[in-house]
Amino acid sequence: MTIQVFGHKSPDTDSTGSPIIWAWYLNQIKGEAAKPVLLGEPNTEAAFMLRHWELDKPEIISDVSEGAPVVIVDTNNPAELPAGINKADIRGIIDHHKLVGGLETKGPIEIRIEPLACTATIMWKMIGKDLAQAPRGIKGAMLTCILSDTLEFRSPTTTQEDKAVAHALAEELGVSIPDYAARMFAAKSDVSAFSDAELLRMDSKEYTVDGKEFRVSVLETTAPKTVLDRKDSLMAAMVDVAREDGADQVLLFVVDILNEQATLLVPNDLVKTVAEKSFGVTVTGDTVILPGIMSRKKQIIPNLKV
Amino acid sequence: MTIQVFGHKSPDTDSTGSPIIWAWYLNQIKGEAAKPVLLGEPNTEAAFMLRHWELDKPEIISDVSEGAPVVIVDTNNPAELPAGINKADIRGIIDHHKLVGGLETKGPIEIRIEPLACTATIMWKMIGKDLAQAPRGIKGAMLTCILSDTLEFRSPTTTQEDKAVAHALAEELGVSIPDYAARMFAAKSDVSAFSDAELLRMDSKEYTVDGKEFRVSVLETTAPKTVLDRKDSLMAAMVDVAREDGADQVLLFVVDILNEQATLLVPNDLVKTVAEKSFGVTVTGDTVILPGIMSRKKQIIPNLKV
Repeated sequence: MTIQVFGHKSPDTDSTGSPIIWAWYLNQIKGEAAKPVLLGEPNTEAAFMLRHWELDKPEIISDVSEGAPVVIVDTNNPAELPAGINKADIRGIIDHHKLVGGLETKGPIEIRIEPLACTATIMWKMIGKDLAQAPRGIKGAMLTCILSDTLEFRSPTTTQEDKAVAHALAEELGVSIPDYAARMFAAKSDVSAFSDAELLRMDSKEYTVDGKEFRVSVLETTAPKTVLDRKDSLMAAMVDVAREDGADQVLLFVVDILNEQATLLVPNDLVKTVAEKSFGVTVTGDTVILPGIMSRKKQIIPNLKV
Repeated sequence: MTIQVFGHKSPDTDSTGSPIIWAWYLNQIKGEAAKPVLLGEPNTEAAFMLRHWELDKPEIISDVSEGAPVVIVDTNNPAELPAGINKADIRGIIDHHKLVGGLETKGPIEIRIEPLACTATIMWKMIGKDLAQAPRGIKGAMLTCILSDTLEFRSPTTTQEDKAVAHALAEELGVSIPDYAARMFAAKSDVSAFSDAELLRMDSKEYTVDGKEFRVSVLETTAPKTVLDRKDSLMAAMVDVAREDGADQVLLFVVDILNEQATLLVPNDLVKTVAEKSFGVTVTGDTVILPGIMSRKKQIIPNLKV
């Protein structure tokens, strides 16, 4: 039976590219039939990666069957995975997030989690010399994943390993990192096709802080103005999204990649309190700038207070 | 703060040796202050390993403090770890068991789980060339862990990697595997000092099968007769151990390492049913021989039926 390789439910670049990389490795190097699949529509940057490197868009699936062999990448959180995940035959997990607990396997399997910025960097280490056999598209996907997750090395999640791997891949591929990253970020910043609710859910994770359930949404962009121009309707949409998703509040951080800061939308007193307690800022209007804040994992979540 | 490295609560050879190996690696290679600790008294084979390779017996601890840095080896099961484990600062997990869920980390950490017979084999791969710097005792502990977990390559959990690593270590150390393993197994088989309840709990894990809670105990020995001579008092002790530990039934499998079979004690009709349904045997007395059964992980647990 073909192994399905997938990331989380809101496929960003790493969750789209890493399944493609790993399925190639399983098929071509390990001789195990595998195919990448997605748990949702890829975001605009991931779609750019697929076009640029002429990679087939993986099939989108909504659940996995009982006993189906799967490899999970870029998450270990059951909430970000299909409902039936613990009835599937989980064959491997490759991830760079904190262990949240909740996934179970029937027997011992290969699990590799490392505190690197990007799943693709871990795969680069695991694949080793065999990567020489990979077509350009696989190496291009790897490079794109790393530049995306590190925001071209600006994110504080960036490690020396992520950087070294990206530079080696770029050199081999003859890609100029600044030019290519600019095209990636332009693609990511083109959010005109998305509704407010879609924007709020695009790159979003739920966290509980002092009993309050937050949907913490991040939009990384080189054009924050195009998002902030929509702030009134985005704040209105937060109420519905929170209710539909069972959260108390949506927090939207608009990350300005080039200026290395985030703007938090402040629709009400709860968010005002969160902003002031968590980031030591004073809020006067319905937005607040958070200098230097780029990473949900490293800077937002660890600091959230109510 | 010194990182405490430990395995599970019933320290067998791998759970005693692997913390020693990894603490050496962290201290000497990674430059991070670390010390091995134990969550209980090592078994007789683990004690033999410590004596034979002149390794200090690690301190025994009963819990970990909040925020204390720890590395967990040879388990990922919170039930086999100190009560405060999820409040500790878990820095790494190296294991070869199925993922059971329940451990959580504050941030992304290094987790390496592989379907190999022994934690020490995974460490051998992770340490790589740096192992050349290890003293004989560290390499000796590695060899002992692998021979123990594979029952000198007899267990069906044994992989080619475990075997290759053990042979390489034995050659480098000038150790004859058959002679050394015989001494290890003789040490493990010397259970005269243990009470019946201690024997039942020595290498024991709890599993729920169809709503029944079983404490599945395994005694690996080259002298099954010395255990089976005590079967009446062992069966009597099962009642108390099950009650004290909140289990419905203790199952004791006496694994005869040299003859590659297990004897299951059959104190009542429940265990008779379990034996017949799980292993396709016919039970006539208060013990039954299960030919070829050596591994709880691979052969006992996956087959248990009520």
